[in-house]
Order: sequence, then structure tokens, then C-alpha cells
Amino acid sequence: MKAISLLGSTGSIGTQTLEIIEEFPEQFKIVALTAGSNLPLLEKQIQNHSPEVVSLAKEELIPELISRLKNLASEKKLRKMPQVLGGLDGLKAAAAWDNAELVVTGIVGCAGLLPTLEAIRAGKDIALANKETLIAAGPVVIPELKKSGSRLLPADSEHSAIFQCLQGTPWAETATLSTGIPTPGLNKIELTASGGAFRDWNIKDLEKATTKDAISHPNWSMGKKITVDSATLMNKGLEVIEAHYLFGLNYENINIIIHPQSIIHSMIEMDDSSVLAQLGWPDMKLPILYCMSWPHRLKTPWRRLDLTKAGPLTFKEPDKEKYPCMELAYEAGKTGGTMPAALNAANEEAVAQFLEEKIHFLEIPKVIYKTCEKHKNELNSHPKLEDVLFVDNWARRYVRDIVNKKTT
Amino acid sequence: MKAISLLGSTGSIGTQTLEIIEEFPEQFKIVALTAGSNLPLLEKQIQNHSPEVVSLAKEELIPELISRLKNLASEKKLRKMPQVLGGLDGLKAAAAWDNAELVVTGIVGCAGLLPTLEAIRAGKDIALANKETLIAAGPVVIPELKKSGSRLLPADSEHSAIFQCLQGTPWAETATLSTGIPTPGLNKIELTASGGAFRDWNIKDLEKATTKDAISHPNWSMGKKITVDSATLMNKGLEVIEAHYLFGLNYENINIIIHPQSIIHSMIEMDDSSVLAQLGWPDMKLPILYCMSWPHRLKTPWRRLDLTKAGPLTFKEPDKEKYPCMELAYEAGKTGGTMPAALNAANEEAVAQFLEEKIHFLEIPKVIYKTCEKHKNELNSHPKLEDVLFVDNWARRYVRDIVNKKTT
Repeated sequence: MKAISLLGSTGSIGTQTLEIIEEFPEQFKIVALTAGSNLPLLEKQIQNHSPEVVSLAKEELIPELISRLKNLASEKKLRKMPQVLGGLDGLKAAAAWDNAELVVTGIVGCAGLLPTLEAIRAGKDIALANKETLIAAGPVVIPELKKSGSRLLPADSEHSAIFQCLQGTPWAETATLSTGIPTPGLNKIELTASGGAFRDWNIKDLEKATTKDAISHPNWSMGKKITVDSATLMNKGLEVIEAHYLFGLNYENINIIIHPQSIIHSMIEMDDSSVLAQLGWPDMKLPILYCMSWPHRLKTPWRRLDLTKAGPLTFKEPDKEKYPCMELAYEAGKTGGTMPAALNAANEEAVAQFLEEKIHFLEIPKVIYKTCEKHKNELNSHPKLEDVLFVDNWARRYVRDIVNKKTT
Repeated sequence: MKAISLLGSTGSIGTQTLEIIEEFPEQFKIVALTAGSNLPLLEKQIQNHSPEVVSLAKEELIPELISRLKNLASEKKLRKMPQVLGGLDGLKAAAAWDNAELVVTGIVGCAGLLPTLEAIRAGKDIALANKETLIAAGPVVIPELKKSGSRLLPADSEHSAIFQCLQGTPWAETATLSTGIPTPGLNKIELTASGGAFRDWNIKDLEKATTKDAISHPNWSMGKKITVDSATLMNKGLEVIEAHYLFGLNYENINIIIHPQSIIHSMIEMDDSSVLAQLGWPDMKLPILYCMSWPHRLKTPWRRLDLTKAGPLTFKEPDKEKYPCMELAYEAGKTGGTMPAALNAANEEAVAQFLEEKIHFLEIPKVIYKTCEKHKNELNSHPKLEDVLFVDNWARRYVRDIVNKKTT
């Protein structure tokens, strides 16, 4: 029975993780839950999973949560009363919770970075769904992993595919995860991209793209921010940076290929030219489960892949002109240091501004480019955590300044 | 430096193995070569690879080979004179050669069975290109593998794909190869089939199929017999039986899927629904190399797979009515004992008769069916080697009898 601390339990990764735990009550149990402010859902989750500790980001909601739990207890609907914490300290405590063996980090954005780092320092295994941990803070996180022996198990579809394929290399024995040591025999990583909402659009028509157009993803059902990242291919650029830190390959050996059907979730090419791929229907539950069951496989009743029904699998090179964000991410990755943190924060803020319809779709890469150019003068090649957080903050402000100047 | 005994050095597998050894002179060396009767080629191979021992199937050619080698030696074109053996005893001696660590068994048909068994008994690792070893003699071979600790490394494209994918399972650690113990977590094997020469033919038009039509394979360049097996899908049926013995799965969990592009070489489906696949251009050299380098990967300059150039990957269910041989193989596999030996021998003889234009393409499965039906009365569920050889012989004669009765 693996004990799990789940950070971000009311989000998309969180609810799917709990669904898996409900499917495998003999294998997994929840010891810690953290959420933002969705009290009704969190209450339900506490009732179902009886965690030892709960933490709420919005501390002012703690009294209401306690009163809800007391009501449940008085109705004998609660097996045991959890410890209730709040704020960043509570989140960190849940992340490093003594009885937890695996920490699922389902908190998006830079907010997930601090608790993930806390879990790493506590030597926990991490099911990593928070990509900022590596993208923004790779240079900070990698040394901490080496120190504590904590292992990052990728919970997103593409890196899980690579991770699954890599199991078949001597790597699994000789190297620990995420130590930056490249896998012996591994030549190339090929990340597949659906191409996002605009994959069938002519580049000229992108001028007419609206916010509504950008948030309709053809294959995956995801949050708005990630769906826009899909449309710009920034998501794939960020995944390239993440893959660099997770699997130790140079950027020259990490490629992106458009695969509209999202059936091949990613591939690796070995030194001898053999290619290994992981396939499945587009569904986040499988990579989450694999983090939880690794290195084993659990029997699921989930729908099996049927390639005769998936339609022809097609592939094409991504169009660099159509997807400038992709190149920006490669450049930031190669520059290293705090540049990926600046890129990531600038992107988050630019997408937020786009979703508020303050900038046009085609301005997203322009704003990010300006921010990265500006950051070149302030680049820190060997940042500490506080440097990363500072740059993250700065880049967001800088993007807002650009947008405000434009609109005023 | 891995020392290799190569059985069938002048055949297709043999010459490709030697090409690989010439590409990697630091990694591999030849200690034994065996051939049938192609003296000019064998002489060249001896000159290039300086084996310790050579064996010729046609014993009457030994004097000529020795005289050729003496000429080479006198011209100082031979580094060292090998020991020259002949016939079945010579072949067996080469297969069990003391200094050999890996035996590549490139002899096709039942002729390859005896030396492969000899290599197994000597505890050698085997690069298995001779499928009869497992198809005809699985029940004999599996116990011998357990006894000697010899490991079967599949050298054909499909089983190598599965083998490569399976490296990523706990199986690689916990179980030895080919012990009949199924891999933990492995749910299904999916063998891909090009569909052969008639894949785009309407079932009705098969009546008009000629020998020439049947030996034109769309993707792979192979011998005539195997190309006909591709057209009937018997090759895939035989691979199902081989996969059963290699990977320990029940026949219900081994599927065939038509994939005309031959880019995905086969797949496995794990218990959790994840699918792993191995991909590459159709080229036998990669699976042969992997047997030789396993568990490592060597850096090759070979052409890299480019999915943007491979065209759409398509898949369909094989048509049972169009490919009756496939079902015959499943039936024989499920019956077990000597039945797969009868099926395999009947198929070899039926294809030979077809290539001599004594029977029509559509009669191949009919003749095999009759032979298997007849064999039901004589089935031996726990055969010894001599039983297998007897059935092999009987089935060939039986097919010839059917054909002769028809033609007289």
C-alpha cells in the first residue's frame, strides 16, 4: 500500500489521481490533501479518503472547512478528523509529510514549485505534473535531487511515454532519475505534438484567430492556459526544456514532430537507429497511474487502444514560422540559467493577457520575445531559488507593462 | 569483444551478420562459420574473418575448400588456416564451439533445428533466426533452455520489436528468456503484418494468383519461401507460435494486425493499457545487431527513421477468410505437442509444391489443413526430439502424396 500526498487535489490532475486511488484501494491510500479554495469538493475528498493532513491555500477558509468537517463527524460521515493546515507553510508540510512515500504535484504554475522542492528535499518520490519545477528551476532542482535521492517520475503524457520507453535501457539500473546524466544508448527524444487548435489553419488566417478559437483543443480536454500553449506550441517548447532536465539530452537531440492523432505519445531513438514509442488513447490517467505503480504495471479495465479504429497515424515537421514560441523555448533552454524561468513566466502572463483579450494571439510570441531579450542583460547562469522566483516575478510584471503601454 | 559462431554464413542472415561484424570490428569477431555449398563466398568470408573452425554441409566439397584455402595461404592471403569439418557433426561442433559466446542460427528450415539445439545444450546465447527451433520443437527446446541457462535472443524483426519493448518490464530482471514464464504486467502481443503480396487484392481475384504474383513482396526483400508465407500470412501465424514460446503468453493474447507500411515492427500492450512499440525502416540488420549488442546499444551510421517521410501509418484487422493459414497456425499452436511441427512441415512442402507450380496458391491452406487433420490421430502432446523429426518428415511426405494423387 503506497501512501500518497496529493498537492492540488481539486484540480484536473488531483481529481484524476483520486479516481485512480478509488479504483485501486488495495494499492494506494491518501495521507495528505491540499487544495486552493474549492471547499465542497475538498470536503467530499476528505470524507472519501480520510487523509492525515489537509492544507488550504486560502487560510481564511480554514474555519469554514473545520466546521464542515465537524458537521460530517457529528453525522458519523467522517472516519477520522484530519489535521488542518493552511497557506504556504501548510502546503510545504503536506508536501514533506512523514508518512507519504509519493507526492503527486498537481499544482500548476510557479505556485507548485516551492512545495515540490520541499518534497524533493524530504527525499520523496515525486509524480511530477507541475512543469515549472524543472522549466523555471531546473538548475536549482537538479542538485537537490542528487542530494536527497528523490526521484522525479513524469506524470505528463509525453515525458511518461519517454520514461516508459527508457525503462528498456540500461539507464533504469545505472542512473537515478533526473540526475542530468544522459541514458547510455539514447540518441534522440521525439516529442509528439497534436498541433493544437490551429494545426489546420493557414498561417495567414492566424491574424483572425480569436480567444475562443484558441481554447478549442482537438484531442485533449485540458485547462484554458494549457490549451492556448498547445495552439502556440509553447507547451511543446516547454516540454523540450523539461525533457532536457529529466533525461539529460542536449537540445539538439530533442525534437518535436506534429502528430495530429495524439496516439503516439512520444518516442525515443536509440544509438543503433531503433525507435521505441509509447502509444495509447489520449488520457492523462495512464501516465498518472504509471507514476504511482512504477516500476510495476497494474491491471486496469480501461479502454484498450485499437489502431484499426484510431485512423491513419500521420506526422509532419512543425512549421517554425507558424509556431515561433517553439523556437523561443529552444533558445531559452540553450541559454539556460534563469532564461527558461523568464520565458515561462512571460508566457504565463502573455496567455493570461490573451485570455482577457488584451492582446492578440499573434502578439503572444512577440511579448515573450521582448521579455527574454530584456532578460539577457540580467541573466543568472547559476541561479538560486530566490533568483528564479525574482525573475519569475519580474517577467510577469514586464509583460504587464508592455501590454499596458500598448493599451494606454 | 564477443566471439560469434555463425551458422549459415552464406545465406541472407549470415551475410548481414558478417556485414555488421565488419562495421564493428572492435565489438565482435567470428570464431566459427558454417555454410551449405557456396564455396566462392565461404572462401571470401574465411579470408575476411579468420574463423577457428569452418563446416560445410556438403561434405564432398571439403577437399575443394581445403585446396582453395591452401592456395590462399600460399599467396599469403589467409591469416590462419581454420579447422575444416563437414556434415551434421561438423555443424553441431561449430554450434557448440567452445570459444563462441553467441551463436547466430541463420539456417532456415528444420535443418537449423539440430545445431541450434546443440548450441542450447552447450549453454550458448542464441541469436535465433531459425524459427523452426521453437515452432516445430518448442516442447523439446524449452526444457533444454531451462537446463542449460542458454538464452534465445530473437533475430527476426517482429520478435525483436517485442523483445526490445519488453526490456522495459521487470521481466528483464526476474525471468530468463524463453522459460515460458509470462512477463509480469504484459497483457498482449500485437504482431504487425505487411499483408504480403496480395494485401490489396480482392479475395475473389486470388483464384488468378500466380507464383510470380506471390513472390513479389511490397516491403521486405526476402527469400521466395518466406515471401509466399507472407502472402498467405502463414509467416505471421508461425510467428504467433514462436511468440507463444518466447514470451510465455497464451494464444488468446497474441494478435495479428495488418500494417502495410511495416514501420511499427510489433507492439506490446501492458496490463494498465499502455502500448509500447518498436519502429524503424524495414531492415533485418537492426534486429540482428540488437541480438549481438544486447542489452547495450551500439552507435550506427544507419539511416534514421523519419516519420514525416514514412507516410501515414495505417492498420486493419486481418481478413480471416482471405488468410486461412493464419487460423490454421492458431489452431495448431493451441493444440500444441507435435501439431505445430506438422503444420510447419506441411507448409514448407506445400509452398515448395506451389513454387514448382504443382498446386495453386489457394490450395496451400487446403493441403496444410488436410495434413493437420490427419495428424490429429497421431498427436504426441509431450514429444521428444525424435518425435518432432518424425512428424516433420511424415508431414512433408503426406503433402507430396496429396499433391501427387491430385496430379496423377
